Amino acid sequence: MTTLTESPDLLRHLDDTELDLIDRYWRAANYLSVGQIYLMDNPLLTEPLRPEHIKPRLLGHWGTTPGLNLVYAHLNRVIRARDLNAMYVTGPGHGGPGLVANAYLEGTYTEVYPRITRDADGLRRLFRQFSFPGGIPSHVAPETPGSIHEGGELGYALVHAYGAAFDNPDLLVACVVGDGEAETGPLAASWHSTKFVDPRRDGAVLPILHLNGYKIANPTILARIPEPELLDLLRGYGHRPIVVSGDDPTRVHRDLAAALDDAVEDIAAIQALARGNGLGERPAWPMIVLRTPKGWTGPAEVDGTRVEGTFRAHQVPLSGVRANPEHLAQLESWLRGYRPEELFDTDGALRADLAALAPTGTRRMSANPHTNGGELLRDLLLPDFRDYAVDVPAPAASTGEATRVAGAFLRDVVRANPRTFRVMGPDETASNRLTALFEATDRTWNAAVEPGDDHLAPDGRVMEVLSEHLCQGWLEGYLLTGRHGLFNCYEAFIHIVDSMVNQHAKWLKTTRDIPWRRPIASLNYLLSSHVWRQDHNGFSHQDPGFIDHVMNKKAEIVRVYLPPDANTLLSTVDHCLRSRDYVNVVVAGKQPALNYLPMDEAVLHCARGLGIWGWASNDGTELPDVVLACAGDIPTLETLAAAALLRELLPDLRIRVVNVVDLMRLQPDTEHPHGLPDAQFDALFTTDRPVVFAYHGYPWLIHRLTYRRTNHDNIHVRGYKEEGTTTTPFDIVMMNDLDRYHLVMDVIDRVPSLGGRLARLRQDMVDRRARARAYTREHGEDPPEISGWTWPA
Amino acid sequence: MTTLTESPDLLRHLDDTELDLIDRYWRAANYLSVGQIYLMDNPLLTEPLRPEHIKPRLLGHWGTTPGLNLVYAHLNRVIRARDLNAMYVTGPGHGGPGLVANAYLEGTYTEVYPRITRDADGLRRLFRQFSFPGGIPSHVAPETPGSIHEGGELGYALVHAYGAAFDNPDLLVACVVGDGEAETGPLAASWHSTKFVDPRRDGAVLPILHLNGYKIANPTILARIPEPELLDLLRGYGHRPIVVSGDDPTRVHRDLAAALDDAVEDIAAIQALARGNGLGERPAWPMIVLRTPKGWTGPAEVDGTRVEGTFRAHQVPLSGVRANPEHLAQLESWLRGYRPEELFDTDGALRADLAALAPTGTRRMSANPHTNGGELLRDLLLPDFRDYAVDVPAPAASTGEATRVAGAFLRDVVRANPRTFRVMGPDETASNRLTALFEATDRTWNAAVEPGDDHLAPDGRVMEVLSEHLCQGWLEGYLLTGRHGLFNCYEAFIHIVDSMVNQHAKWLKTTRDIPWRRPIASLNYLLSSHVWRQDHNGFSHQDPGFIDHVMNKKAEIVRVYLPPDANTLLSTVDHCLRSRDYVNVVVAGKQPALNYLPMDEAVLHCARGLGIWGWASNDGTELPDVVLACAGDIPTLETLAAAALLRELLPDLRIRVVNVVDLMRLQPDTEHPHGLPDAQFDALFTTDRPVVFAYHGYPWLIHRLTYRRTNHDNIHVRGYKEEGTTTTPFDIVMMNDLDRYHLVMDVIDRVPSLGGRLARLRQDMVDRRARARAYTREHGEDPPEISGWTWPA
Repeated sequence: MTTLTESPDLLRHLDDTELDLIDRYWRAANYLSVGQIYLMDNPLLTEPLRPEHIKPRLLGHWGTTPGLNLVYAHLNRVIRARDLNAMYVTGPGHGGPGLVANAYLEGTYTEVYPRITRDADGLRRLFRQFSFPGGIPSHVAPETPGSIHEGGELGYALVHAYGAAFDNPDLLVACVVGDGEAETGPLAASWHSTKFVDPRRDGAVLPILHLNGYKIANPTILARIPEPELLDLLRGYGHRPIVVSGDDPTRVHRDLAAALDDAVEDIAAIQALARGNGLGERPAWPMIVLRTPKGWTGPAEVDGTRVEGTFRAHQVPLSGVRANPEHLAQLESWLRGYRPEELFDTDGALRADLAALAPTGTRRMSANPHTNGGELLRDLLLPDFRDYAVDVPAPAASTGEATRVAGAFLRDVVRANPRTFRVMGPDETASNRLTALFEATDRTWNAAVEPGDDHLAPDGRVMEVLSEHLCQGWLEGYLLTGRHGLFNCYEAFIHIVDSMVNQHAKWLKTTRDIPWRRPIASLNYLLSSHVWRQDHNGFSHQDPGFIDHVMNKKAEIVRVYLPPDANTLLSTVDHCLRSRDYVNVVVAGKQPALNYLPMDEAVLHCARGLGIWGWASNDGTELPDVVLACAGDIPTLETLAAAALLRELLPDLRIRVVNVVDLMRLQPDTEHPHGLPDAQFDALFTTDRPVVFAYHGYPWLIHRLTYRRTNHDNIHVRGYKEEGTTTTPFDIVMMNDLDRYHLVMDVIDRVPSLGGRLARLRQDMVDRRARARAYTREHGEDPPEISGWTWPA
Repeated sequence: MTTLTESPDLLRHLDDTELDLIDRYWRAANYLSVGQIYLMDNPLLTEPLRPEHIKPRLLGHWGTTPGLNLVYAHLNRVIRARDLNAMYVTGPGHGGPGLVANAYLEGTYTEVYPRITRDADGLRRLFRQFSFPGGIPSHVAPETPGSIHEGGELGYALVHAYGAAFDNPDLLVACVVGDGEAETGPLAASWHSTKFVDPRRDGAVLPILHLNGYKIANPTILARIPEPELLDLLRGYGHRPIVVSGDDPTRVHRDLAAALDDAVEDIAAIQALARGNGLGERPAWPMIVLRTPKGWTGPAEVDGTRVEGTFRAHQVPLSGVRANPEHLAQLESWLRGYRPEELFDTDGALRADLAALAPTGTRRMSANPHTNGGELLRDLLLPDFRDYAVDVPAPAASTGEATRVAGAFLRDVVRANPRTFRVMGPDETASNRLTALFEATDRTWNAAVEPGDDHLAPDGRVMEVLSEHLCQGWLEGYLLTGRHGLFNCYEAFIHIVDSMVNQHAKWLKTTRDIPWRRPIASLNYLLSSHVWRQDHNGFSHQDPGFIDHVMNKKAEIVRVYLPPDANTLLSTVDHCLRSRDYVNVVVAGKQPALNYLPMDEAVLHCARGLGIWGWASNDGTELPDVVLACAGDIPTLETLAAAALLRELLPDLRIRVVNVVDLMRLQPDTEHPHGLPDAQFDALFTTDRPVVFAYHGYPWLIHRLTYRRTNHDNIHVRGYKEEGTTTTPFDIVMMNDLDRYHLVMDVIDRVPSLGGRLARLRQDMVDRRARARAYTREHGEDPPEISGWTWPA
């Protein structure tokens, strides 16, 4: 344990003048924070506080704010002293007033929001807009300059910070971790990011664990375990903790200044060593443990109950201020305690000696361009995906492994963009058959390496850790700071990050309406090892519901693609890597599967998003008797096999096969930018013929997408209905009635002219299902006519 | 660091005879494990191994299995020696063959699956069924006796183990944590469960961190950090780690036996001390770090590449065995290396001296009744929920806080069931206004307590930690071992556990077809602080999509309730607490809101699940001109306000108000057990009148539920369309067009007879919206006619 106050020589870091200045800067930020929570008017307290100056609804979080402001002020000092390129990630993001206050003090706020001038009138607007209808959110949010991290859902501060630091060798990411947030799983796992940092090529993260002791109504775990236990824990994470603790501002200022000097000097030394002599032992990166009271400098007691330093300081310490004269007086004395007259001149401008404390230009954390990543974003250099095409001389006659083919393309994306593109995966990149990547790069790894290890290196471009949360969070941080990436994952387990996707999608939606936020690269998912091919993992690995989950996000954010084969996957991945501000979900198989389209046709098919496959259809220029629609590789296979069966057994039946790659095309164009106009939809799916739709996921989604279409009543969907276990691929499709035989039965049941006439053929299908099932039960594998099926020559 | 081999006196724990026996037992389990992965026939190798004895598809995970078997054998020893009541939670649950093997060796497997006899024929069946069509899953699964934990999605072993241990003072839960799983967020957070154990009233968890070094294709973090760093980490979690490390079986047997003796004796001492002298300092609970090779005892090399002790041992070390004579020979020598003739007699029965090593009866971990919790489950003693009713002399005239009222009921549920009911929440129980609970109990907490803390105690019934993962996992473990509980959570953040819910729902679905698994108490969610009342947290806290998520689960598992007021919430909670084997999702408000139904009517309404509110309707015995449907507290409020407006402004319009509590009633009865028959649905919603449906969540769900209904084309849904920020309650409903004025406009637009006639009234609504918005922008709160609205007397 390093207790700085025990080392008097460290006190040199802050002389009395500096100390006084930094304390005043902190008071200014605190004053502005309290003002935002409480005041609609009288921002400089030029007159006694009256009820009408107070907001009617007091909404905000004071408790964490003074700590955030303290750290911010001290970071400014080390930034100026060393011309650091630094940014600030705020784990306790509900301390929004603090970050807004600091951006305002630095001038950035007025630059991006000119209405909020640096005078009394601007102050009034600044206060009034906070948590106010038509104003700004109460949390750190996309609207907050300098933020890449909305603090609403806790747990992702540290992993975002690391994502920002990767491949930014000059960047220091200071990251305040709240002791509440530290209890979450994602945060608890994030500490181990220390094993994925390359001190040569990456920037540094400086975690500042802020122990203010309390959550909403409870103490926090890390604040209530003995300090030696806490320090063991942090050392176990790979850190050298530096403790700063106290409730006397003077002492804490001195200690924190010394701690920050220590930390940034250590970081510089670690990096210099690695960049000079080459990589040695993995360093124990410094971090700071800051133990200060919750709601520090706020009301010590309210109505006889202790507030400062307790969970009661979490939100608004003084409530009902308009109606409670005592609380009103207490608020006024709280505000005046910061001595605003020492902070702002009579016009309401920050006093010059304080303004000089902030860094300038892009050194201001609120104006660091990394925090508005779109400003730094450059297009990826992409090889021509057509060069990776598989040869498809005839449809459905040869096989390929779609993700393996895509892997070769991604390998060359890595080669062409060695500093701006990463692939994330929870130890599944090889399993998902993206192995070609390892011809160009390694897995990121800065822990011990042993003989026999496969492609590990500190500067690898493939980040593998058995945590979907870390993969997602690192990638978000990487994208938000202006780079590109792809997350490959087992389809079922991407649900682990459902809630993180929600927050990222909300971020993207909000930034679209913020002119100074530039578009960032899309968040790309390549989901493989999907629901239909979990032969050896079984039911727990079968869940195609992530598509449904993202469908609830704003239509302008979400894209879902189900390329049926290798060439369509190539075209899709290329498209996604070029896009901006979307969440792209691509679901593709990794197992050997039939190729359908030569590259030219694949490109056209993907551009259209859906279309009739003429070679599989026999409706010619007439209206079909039935439309067989499909989306997803396995549904496409079963649909084609059903089409072949029908064409063999019922040659007079006019069949149209429609394949869907871009799921959003099914929606009306009023609902989604990719939506197909009704006339075009009707032309493909008819207005009155039965449609048997074989879909990759839960069948209801197709109804949701098409319920406004003319022919919706005739659309019959087969999909995954939550039946599964460890069994053969064909057995799983049979368990869910998605198999070719059942699709034929569905057609027989739905084409009116076939009606009762075809009882024998229907029974034949029932028998074939039974025989296939019996075969798998006896032999442990699918019948050869199933596993070896190709389109009849 | 404790290295046991350095303390020779500890070697007394295992004499040579015992060592030989335990090693043979381990070999027997390993033999059975390999047999399950590879063999269809010739289970005792009574003839040379031939290709036709080998399964055509080799599906399973060998790598983790020998470690699981080793621990199991040694636990058997300490169980027998001390008559321990112990169960086994297998983090690396893909090691299914090992757990099946052990259940078979103990006889439990044959007891629950009589086909799998304890002879050669039974062995053949045991081997063949594994990962085989019509057989059993490859992972530890509900089908596996002794399991409460499907190992498919990693991360929840330790939290399940703690859930099992709570309130089971005599139970020892041994929990193997894989070093892959240890990288996940939920597992990383789970270690801190040490601060929530009461050594007096709870059982103990013995974590066994198994460092076999590798995941699928990567090393693991915890295996590749220096051992001092690892031990710091584990001490930081609150443990006393005991290290056992090696690849020499004899030495590892001795060390592991000593380590287990040490651990269980320490646990007994901790408990005796706490139970005798009362609670002292929080103890450092013992745990074991077991470092042994991955795929230990398997093929050292395959085709010239090292396999044992590397990630290549993860799944099936020898592939293509049928077609590869060299691999076939290697498999045979691998299997014969276990010397099956020393393990099984010529009939295939386990030799008697080995059989005697297993505990008997319910002391067998595979037969411990806690692992089939339904066997132990007792009904909750429930007070009469009617006693907590709020008085409702007139509908929509008085207000209540629904969750606060429910809190009083829950308080008395706690009182009546002091050992079998817990309430979980991520530090939101007070925020969700269930504060009455703290009249009866405290928050579970065994870390330091300081003055001013609010209701903390080691034996509290309310478990609060800022981790939805821990809340969910603890509760799952608690329910699976035969107890009851409720998880209260902010609605938006319950998405954090989406994937955990998937796995629990799959578990419930599967157990319904396993006769020996008894029903367990339902998993009950009370979601409050919902999407419509996030005044001060804003957009990040607004997501009603969990309902959509659970809707993809099997219909027989899922129930969703949207009680509109306090009395309906009481009735709903009572119903949920009585149910079995469901996932019940209840969404209810915590803010003051109108009361609609006296208790008698509330009970009837909840029993029906939906119904016409006659007092708000004016259609009498006639068909209405329009149906105003609603589900959820805020949509109900807006619908009633719209109904009142319409009745005032268009007194001739016949309005029917239908409120829906049980969302599943909207589905056809062919789709869900709660589904309403078409005739009844048509009677409520008509077959041809416009329905304006105000729904709590994303509007598409209502379409999904009703798309097969006769009148679906006339159903127009308003709900949350992902628009939000920090603003007033009414502003949020306006942003999503769910407000009363917009509902009136929707009616005007849809009732044909109103058509063009009412342009002025429609414009009036537009104006009222604009005025309401302007008011909130100016005053920062909703207009009084909105916030104070009641049903016209």
